[in-house]
Amino acid sequence: MATQLQQAKAGHLTDAMRQVARREGLSPETIQKEVAAGRLVIPANPIHLAGALVPTGIGRAVSTKINANIGCSSVRSDIDGEIEKMNIAIEAGADAVMDLSTGGDLDEIRRRLLAECPVPFGTVPIYEVIVGRDVEQIDCDTILKVVEKQAAQGVDFFTIHAGILREHLELLDRRVCGIVSRGGALLAKWMTHHNRQNPMYELFDDLCAIMREHDVCFSLGDGLRPGCGADATDEPQLAELRTLGELTQRAQDNGCQVMVEGPGHVPFDQIQYNMEIQQEICRGAPFYVLGPLVTDIAPGYDHITSAIGGTAAAYYGASFLCYVTPREHLGLPDLNDVRQGVVACKIAAHAADVARRFPGAAEKDRALSAARAQLDWKKHLDSAIDPKTARMMYEEACAHSRISAQPTRDDYCTMCGKAWCSVRINKELKDARNAKL
Amino acid sequence: MATQLQQAKAGHLTDAMRQVARREGLSPETIQKEVAAGRLVIPANPIHLAGALVPTGIGRAVSTKINANIGCSSVRSDIDGEIEKMNIAIEAGADAVMDLSTGGDLDEIRRRLLAECPVPFGTVPIYEVIVGRDVEQIDCDTILKVVEKQAAQGVDFFTIHAGILREHLELLDRRVCGIVSRGGALLAKWMTHHNRQNPMYELFDDLCAIMREHDVCFSLGDGLRPGCGADATDEPQLAELRTLGELTQRAQDNGCQVMVEGPGHVPFDQIQYNMEIQQEICRGAPFYVLGPLVTDIAPGYDHITSAIGGTAAAYYGASFLCYVTPREHLGLPDLNDVRQGVVACKIAAHAADVARRFPGAAEKDRALSAARAQLDWKKHLDSAIDPKTARMMYEEACAHSRISAQPTRDDYCTMCGKAWCSVRINKELKDARNAKL
Repeated sequence: MATQLQQAKAGHLTDAMRQVARREGLSPETIQKEVAAGRLVIPANPIHLAGALVPTGIGRAVSTKINANIGCSSVRSDIDGEIEKMNIAIEAGADAVMDLSTGGDLDEIRRRLLAECPVPFGTVPIYEVIVGRDVEQIDCDTILKVVEKQAAQGVDFFTIHAGILREHLELLDRRVCGIVSRGGALLAKWMTHHNRQNPMYELFDDLCAIMREHDVCFSLGDGLRPGCGADATDEPQLAELRTLGELTQRAQDNGCQVMVEGPGHVPFDQIQYNMEIQQEICRGAPFYVLGPLVTDIAPGYDHITSAIGGTAAAYYGASFLCYVTPREHLGLPDLNDVRQGVVACKIAAHAADVARRFPGAAEKDRALSAARAQLDWKKHLDSAIDPKTARMMYEEACAHSRISAQPTRDDYCTMCGKAWCSVRINKELKDARNAKL
Repeated sequence: MATQLQQAKAGHLTDAMRQVARREGLSPETIQKEVAAGRLVIPANPIHLAGALVPTGIGRAVSTKINANIGCSSVRSDIDGEIEKMNIAIEAGADAVMDLSTGGDLDEIRRRLLAECPVPFGTVPIYEVIVGRDVEQIDCDTILKVVEKQAAQGVDFFTIHAGILREHLELLDRRVCGIVSRGGALLAKWMTHHNRQNPMYELFDDLCAIMREHDVCFSLGDGLRPGCGADATDEPQLAELRTLGELTQRAQDNGCQVMVEGPGHVPFDQIQYNMEIQQEICRGAPFYVLGPLVTDIAPGYDHITSAIGGTAAAYYGASFLCYVTPREHLGLPDLNDVRQGVVACKIAAHAADVARRFPGAAEKDRALSAARAQLDWKKHLDSAIDPKTARMMYEEACAHSRISAQPTRDDYCTMCGKAWCSVRINKELKDARNAKL
């Protein structure tokens, strides 16, 4: 079966392209053209597509998408808990999920999650390769077998850390935080131990063959992404990015869809450059960024530092934002952290879509604000990105101020009371002006 | 007694300038020069300065500052609760507070707060003018009396909505949200009722005389700030800004220190222009912005939407960020909302300082990240913007993963467990590289 990329290049419109076009309010031809150019991916493994998946497009031509990471670890492992996290993430607005499990029964976790997952589903196969063995024991056969198996299970995109090369490791000495990518660190350890090149790089054409066969989309991992602001935009990062640019081309030439992963921790003033250089080097392939976090000093609040960076990133060139939860750097997220992370990331994606004038984005803001100006609380709260939380806060305020939470009866807001309500005064002024006309 | 501006212009170095210089790591002469040029203010009423106040500078030459609004309303009123809010705000990092009380015993609230307040303290005198009377009954005598009384109490800065003019009101018909500033809406109502010019504008020279006498800093209010993205950067907003530019000059010519207030709701792509146009029109007078909120659709999360906008604003030209709490638009903040709002705003201010390469800002990030890379959990958590929250999350993770929270004994992080810890692998790799040398 041909991949979405191969079909687009051949001038064929697939069902998945048509569905993406409908969801985005664009013509199917636009979607096809963007996929053919490598600027848009539709991570849709036919096996998953035959099951729960509703296809989603990722690229600059469509709305900005967000991903939520979930997964069991050796530290904490509970399949039902991860399914609950996945469902909460999707309910809160995640457009994709990645299963980063490193503990428990990985096959069973993946099978259960995939069966229920309506959005593109990604994994990092190197994690499974490493589980149960020391990293030095990794061999090429095992890598290909694991990748093949997960592809056959229906995974839609794989993070493949093929861009971190042996020669890059010498560049790391000046770094404050070295390698913070788990996959990158593990492969660096393997390369150092064996004094050989990254096996994911050596196997790249074999990996392409498997991923083309199952139309699994590449998500080229950035094993050398900066782990703190001081390491941002440094030579190791850029050297790996240049390799990722070559691999993007090779994978596309092999008929595979490709996204490219990016930083990480990046001060606000460096975000524009980081987005533009990736778009140039990878010739418009969708950029999938983790954050970026605009400061290091806010553990406990990194959903906020990454929402700041994510907005700038998606405005300047990223297509896909990976959420960061409040518990990043400190521990594994619980259900509430997952929700907080998704909402913050969704805010960033939407704010960027408003700023880049993506059709329909600003209209959502206008609709909510028009309801707000009309003191139409029901519509106001229903239009919120998280109506449940907004309604809860509103009802608490009503209880405190002893006014009715019955939306149709309110003619003032819960912040200032009636006499002080600027919104109410505005309505009076507008009525007065209209009466004069 | 001469104001800080008058003294700076006369070439005098005040104690307040020296203290600000020391706190910012700048020379006293730099502070004096910036104050003289009107680009830096030190809101320090001599009465408050003789009491609890530690002087703070606000302007582009110094680090970005943040303000927390507190205050009783007719809806909720409790002096002790507001004092607790003030203390929590300051503990969390607020550089200034504004008392926006509109209910309860206003004089007593202000007196109690001022007595304990170590940071610049601002009010909006028009609120007290209106309490207990209909807005139509406001007269010039009452305005001047209230302003004089609050100045004599020691308030450091006043929001004065003198820039919203009668002729601006005709420009509002296209707006989705009209006037959302409380002060702006009340004055618009007065102007419409009396068919007369804004009394704050008419009284401007009298106000200057009082504020010069007590060295109360102007915070020229933006009564026409946009209340939604659709209204951003529109003609009413810009018309008022031009008036604010004139008033800035007039106040400075009268010997008064001046800040200028700004939006509000501004899509991310319009923030740079908004900052630059204010700096141009107001000739570098410190810009004090509320947010800006980069999207309207996130009630319940507007501390995040405003942290995104605040970072961009402070990067492109603002000097002073007013916090927004999660409960904005929905109700009055409780203690936890105050803390969340301050921390989010502090993140924005710091991220902007890192991005504009303000001396010392990036060093804080580097110090935390170096501790993180060393798995020095104590230093890592102590360096956090909110150490208490970071430590709590870390300890929860330790409890879940059954590892010791005793920082000195950990050699891996709480997210991935020992075998998977990229930070630990990095340390090993670095040791191996060093051993080879």
